Parts: sequence; structure tokens; C-alpha cells
Amino acid sequence: MIRSHYSYQIPKKDGVIVKVAGFVETVRDIGKITFLILRDRYGTIQVTSKDENLCDKIRKLSNESFISVEGRVSLNKEARNGFEIFPINIEVLNEAAKPLPLDISGKIESTLEKRIDWRFVDMKNLKNMGIFILQSEIVRAFTEFMHENNFVRIFASRLTDAATEGGADYFSVNYFDKKAYLAQSPQLYKEAILVSGIDRVYDIGFVYRAEPHHTPRHLCEYASFDIEMVCEDLEEILEMCEGLMNYTFKKLNERCENILKLYNVELKAPKKIPRITFEEANKILLELGVKIDKNDLTPEGEKKICEYSKDNFDSSLVFITEFPFTKKPFYLMRKGENLTYSFDMLFNGLELSSGGIREHRYEERVKNILAKGLKPEDYDHLRFWKYGMPPHGGFAIGIERLTMQILGLKNVREATLLPRDPDRLNP
Amino acid sequence: MIRSHYSYQIPKKDGVIVKVAGFVETVRDIGKITFLILRDRYGTIQVTSKDENLCDKIRKLSNESFISVEGRVSLNKEARNGFEIFPINIEVLNEAAKPLPLDISGKIESTLEKRIDWRFVDMKNLKNMGIFILQSEIVRAFTEFMHENNFVRIFASRLTDAATEGGADYFSVNYFDKKAYLAQSPQLYKEAILVSGIDRVYDIGFVYRAEPHHTPRHLCEYASFDIEMVCEDLEEILEMCEGLMNYTFKKLNERCENILKLYNVELKAPKKIPRITFEEANKILLELGVKIDKNDLTPEGEKKICEYSKDNFDSSLVFITEFPFTKKPFYLMRKGENLTYSFDMLFNGLELSSGGIREHRYEERVKNILAKGLKPEDYDHLRFWKYGMPPHGGFAIGIERLTMQILGLKNVREATLLPRDPDRLNP
Repeated sequence: MIRSHYSYQIPKKDGVIVKVAGFVETVRDIGKITFLILRDRYGTIQVTSKDENLCDKIRKLSNESFISVEGRVSLNKEARNGFEIFPINIEVLNEAAKPLPLDISGKIESTLEKRIDWRFVDMKNLKNMGIFILQSEIVRAFTEFMHENNFVRIFASRLTDAATEGGADYFSVNYFDKKAYLAQSPQLYKEAILVSGIDRVYDIGFVYRAEPHHTPRHLCEYASFDIEMVCEDLEEILEMCEGLMNYTFKKLNERCENILKLYNVELKAPKKIPRITFEEANKILLELGVKIDKNDLTPEGEKKICEYSKDNFDSSLVFITEFPFTKKPFYLMRKGENLTYSFDMLFNGLELSSGGIREHRYEERVKNILAKGLKPEDYDHLRFWKYGMPPHGGFAIGIERLTMQILGLKNVREATLLPRDPDRLNP
Repeated sequence: MIRSHYSYQIPKKDGVIVKVAGFVETVRDIGKITFLILRDRYGTIQVTSKDENLCDKIRKLSNESFISVEGRVSLNKEARNGFEIFPINIEVLNEAAKPLPLDISGKIESTLEKRIDWRFVDMKNLKNMGIFILQSEIVRAFTEFMHENNFVRIFASRLTDAATEGGADYFSVNYFDKKAYLAQSPQLYKEAILVSGIDRVYDIGFVYRAEPHHTPRHLCEYASFDIEMVCEDLEEILEMCEGLMNYTFKKLNERCENILKLYNVELKAPKKIPRITFEEANKILLELGVKIDKNDLTPEGEKKICEYSKDNFDSSLVFITEFPFTKKPFYLMRKGENLTYSFDMLFNGLELSSGGIREHRYEERVKNILAKGLKPEDYDHLRFWKYGMPPHGGFAIGIERLTMQILGLKNVREATLLPRDPDRLNP
């Protein structure tokens, strides 16, 4: 075993023998004493030696070499965390090359491009590492909440021979002698499965958008959390989404306290998320003197409505409901001629989630497809709608965007382990 | 709300008013009384009516129409589950077309091809639905176990510009003006992230193999559960895998009792999984008179070793360790010249998992790549190995294969929601 204790687990008792392992953060040599700061996933430990042989070994260590140290705990108020370790044995498990490709102390700023080029080295900085630990805890909380609410996890294929949203932004795959496409979302599958009688499903996985532009909020591959459930009213969907956010934020406060502190974030678990119809939102924006688009919220509109929600309802999250059919996909159920039973969830100025009640009636769904100028025969899945499809709805949340918004990051690439955009396919 | 209770939640008390919803399984009309069997995700309910108007409505219902029924509970020993519901109101939420594309009663067998063509209708049969509910519970247990053991969930990109295993079986993607490939596994990423200091990671998602053959155990897209952790000995990996299987089988026994019963499966949570080296396995096979391949287990060999394990250790699971380097990927650590610190986990005659200790030393890894006839310059990720990569190992489990082996299914397609093979891209 490489270690007996992580840094935070070391008993604060003089003389206890422990084995720790981690990266050499710094070495300081003041003649007859050498100090070594060792870093593991949870923090740092001071290793202090007066032994000549060991001092010699420590002096030769390059930064970021991975070592294990067996030694005695010694309480010392002046050392980090109130103790140091006097080593008995030091084993160099893998020496690191010099120099490092980028500074990991946080003192010298690198460009985002370089940070992503060296993603796994950049993550040696515990603040950067924290982004991905928090993301892991978001998804953990999501799945816990889903199973507590009787959802079934599905694996909807990401290879398809047909369109989903009707958009053009697909990546094509050379699939034996055929052409396949990378799915833009699991939308039609997560709906179709409901005809089976499984009445609540969720799916987590990558989805793909072949959009050639670079923005701080778009990626060509992103992790989508998708849910779909049997229900009749939009309010049932909103309540599920609200419950999910409440559960997740609570768990993040419990499990990621340190990371949230590093980013100076206070995360308030929402009890009630304000609901504002698109029509009301436009009225509010006009009163605030913000230019509106009759069919959709503009990025500026999203920001201003979030500020309004913060000021008036003390909520960073807000639901905007009942968007016009013009800007929403065909599978949404219409409310009257022009509106839909839809919603967007905004968070700190950005759209995080979209959803709504779907059109479950075969004939009406065909009408919606035609109204969008699409061809029903391109939607093979439609045949499933004939066999008693229950009323249903759902939503999707972009996992990297949620991570970004929680931590207040400026670019979704910061919250993406391996970002894929028109220019980037590695590492 | 569509329902107040699922079938299994209905209080067994005369006169209680409930609202249930589900599919019309059968309608039986005996003149002045009509019986309707309603099916939801958990089971069936008998609805009995003597009301003329309602009887008329019931008679007209097509099978698999989705309806909701409000009514009074009435205890009746002769009815299913000891009660029936006298309806007050029946609402037809979506009528089903006739006839259904395949029999869902389980009385008339369909071909597997047809069942997959109509996957979501086929899953109306509760036994078939059970496959995917059990699969969901497998993955739920996996993730629970991982987080209890401090693993971090990562999202390793599935688009890459480089090879993983060095094999040729890649699907290529038209990625703007470049060529990308669908990942065969997240292997190199899940390893590379360990250089950051996150010392335990897991990843769940699809992986891709462009293999043109049809077998009952291979797919072109399958869900892989991948773990990687900092450690030194193969035994640490085996124990983690053993703990995972023990936890998962226990949870399946708790949470999927009904499904396991439908399939007549008794699932024994393994405390200890036998370890047999590849060399020992070959000796055993020779003694049993089975032809061996000096470099790998044959499908026949896998079967016989599993029978041997069952007979001698009362274990359906067995680890075969230390395979020759010839047949294993370059990233494994060698034991001497010819062997590797590797293992396969077999279950009821089939390989479920592969793993081992990886080569974490840069120079040795380069040597391994060269020894396989591959080019180090094709492996961009290698540069991360220079900055203190800790010793580590891990494994991957095929989720559909595990589902198949637990339930004793004959073809992995039965355990795959939307199978993708050389001939199939839909539904």
C-alpha cells in the first residue's frame, strides 16, 4: 500500500508512525535541516528531516515527483496543520521532469489554452482540481435524487441514423458502409421508452453539436443530464427540477464545503424557484429598458431577468415558462396556437436547462413536425407513439454549465475535463 | 396528477378512493359486468364495472391504450392481489393503435430482431422491462460503491484524434475539417488524470468498436464502467473489484428481488473470488482435456474454468491473473519479460472485466509501446507521464454483459436498450 493515511487523516499524536504519499510541492534546505512539503488530493503535509542521508535524498527531489514517506508524527505549532513528519524512509515512486510545462502554484497565470493543453498538470493546483471534484459531486447528487424518486437510468445510444431536433449541426460517422450521426440529445429515446411503462427515466452522457462558433458557453461535446417522466402539468416538471436543485445544492454544501470556500461561493439551496412567463419577462425587460426579442430571451435579457429575480425574490435561479412555439422544438406540447408548455431555467444570468411537456398524441406530434417544416418520415421513432404513449415531460441540464455557474467561472472550458471545440481534439 | 398510487401502493381497505393509471392489458366483457386489467410499471390491477356507461367505455378500449381510473377499492379474494377497483371515472389519455406490432403477453415468441425493432413495445412485458430496471440498479450500486470509496466521477471525452489500444477498429468522425475517432475506451484519459493528484476516478459511458462481426457477445457501442486508482499491487485492484461485485450483488438482491425471481436467478454476493494464474488455468484445462491457447483463454477455456471454479470454490466469479504480454495492451505493467500484472474476471463462463496494474514509468511505457510495434509519437497523452505519474491500476466492466450474465440471457442485445451492430442503427 502506497499510504496508510491521506493528509487530512493523520492522527495528531506525537510518535505515531504513518505512511503518506503524494507530490513534492517544495523543498527548502537550510543546511542541516530540510523541509519538504508533500501534497495529496486533500492538502499538504510538512516533512522535516535532520538525517544526513535523508536530507541528501530530499535535496535531490524534483518538484512534482511522486514519493511515499514513512515517518513519525511530531506536533509542532509552527508547522502546517500543527504537525510535521520526521521521515524514517522516503521512496521515490516516480521522478518528475523539470521544468513543469506551466506554473501550478497559482502565482503565474497561464492562458486558458495552455491550461487545457496541460489539463492534468494544471489540475495539480488544488483549486483547479476542485472544479472536477465538485462536478463529480453534482452528478452524484443528481443520481441519488433520481433513484430516491423512482427514476430508472437508461443508456440511450449516441449513434443514430436520424435527426433529433431537426437542426443541421450534426457530426457524421463513417459506420461500416453507412452514415451515422452523433446524437444531439437523447430526447426522442428518453421519450420513446415511456411507452414501455417505465414512467421515469434519466440518462447521463455526452451529446454533440457541430456548431462552428467559439463562445465561452458552447462546446461541441458536453455532458447532458436528461430526465423524462410521465405527467400532465408543467408544474410537475418544475417541481421535480426544483427538488433536484434543492437536493443537489444541499449536498454540495455538505460535501464540497472546502471547494466552495476556495471560490468564495455561498450556495443557497432553493426552496421555491420563481416562475415568470415569457410574456411577463418581456414586460419586466421593457420596464427595465432592455431590448427584447419577441420569440426568445436574448443573452442580455437572461442576465437582466436573473438580476430581477435576485432583487425581487432573492433567488439566483429562475424559471421562464411558456415560450413561443417558433423558437422551441417540435416535440413540445403547444399551448394554444403560438405558445408551448415549456420552460428554461436560468442561473446567475445563464440558461442551464430547458424542458417542458411533450406532445404525446401521435397526430398532434405529426402536425408539430410539419409546422416546423420537417418531414414526419425522417422520424422513425414516431411509430412508438401509436401504442399508448402516456402524457409526459422532462428537461435536460448541461453539467459543465452548471459547474461553471456554481463556481462563477468565466468559460465553460474551465469546467470541462477535455473540451472539444472546432479547434480542439486533444488532449 | 395522473395517479395517486402505483399498483403496489394501493391501500387494501374497502372504500378508499384512488386514482391509478396505466395500460389496458385486457378487457373481458360478460354482459352486465366488464373486467379490465390495468398494468403499470410495478404490476397489474383489476378494474370491475357494472355501470352501463363505464362498461361501454371499457368495451371500446383497445389494448395498450393509456388510461387513468379513479375509483373505490373493494377487497375481493378472487381478484388479483385480493382487491378490485370499482371505477367512478375513466379517462383515456392516449388510445393505442391495433394490432400491436408484436405479442407482449409472452405467449407468442418473436425473433430477437423483431423484439429490438420494437424495443419499447417489447418492454411492455414486465419480464423484458425488468432487464433494464436491473441494469439501472447495477449502475446505481456501482456509483454508490465508488463514492463510498472516495472515487471521483470523470467525463472522459469520447472524441479523440489518437488511438487508444493501438487496434484498428475505430469509427471515424467528420470533425469540421479534421478527422476524429470514437474512443474505444477512456483508458488513457482515466490514467492521465491520476497525475493531477486525484487518486481514484471512475467513468461510465459508451465506448465504440468498429468490429464487423456478429456474435452474441459483441456490440459496436456498449456501456463501459471504467475505474482507475493509485496503487501498487494487483491484489489491491482485485480487492476493489471483489468489493464492488459484493456490494452490487447484495444491492440487487435487496432492490431487484422480483426481477431475479422472474428469471429464476439466485445471486450469491461473493465474499472471496478465487484467483487463478493464467499458467495454473492452463494446467487445469490440460488436466480437463481442454485444448489451450498458450497466450490467451479460448471461449471454451473460459467456460471450463468457470465450471471448475463453481465445482471447487462454489464461485460463479473467478479471476484469471498474469496473462502473457503478447495478448495484452501496451499500458499494462510487465511481470518479467513475458507476463503482465493483469487479470480478467469471468462470470458464468464469460469474460466480464479486464484490468491490471499499468506501467506508470515514462521510459518503460515507451518500451512497451515499441514492443507492440506501435509508435510513441502517436500517443500524445504520454507527455503527462513525465510529471510524477503515481503507480496505478484499474479495470473496466461491460455493463450489458454483466446484465446478460446475471439474468442468464443468451445474447447481449437482449440486455442493450438500443443495440448497435454492423447492421443496426435504429430504433
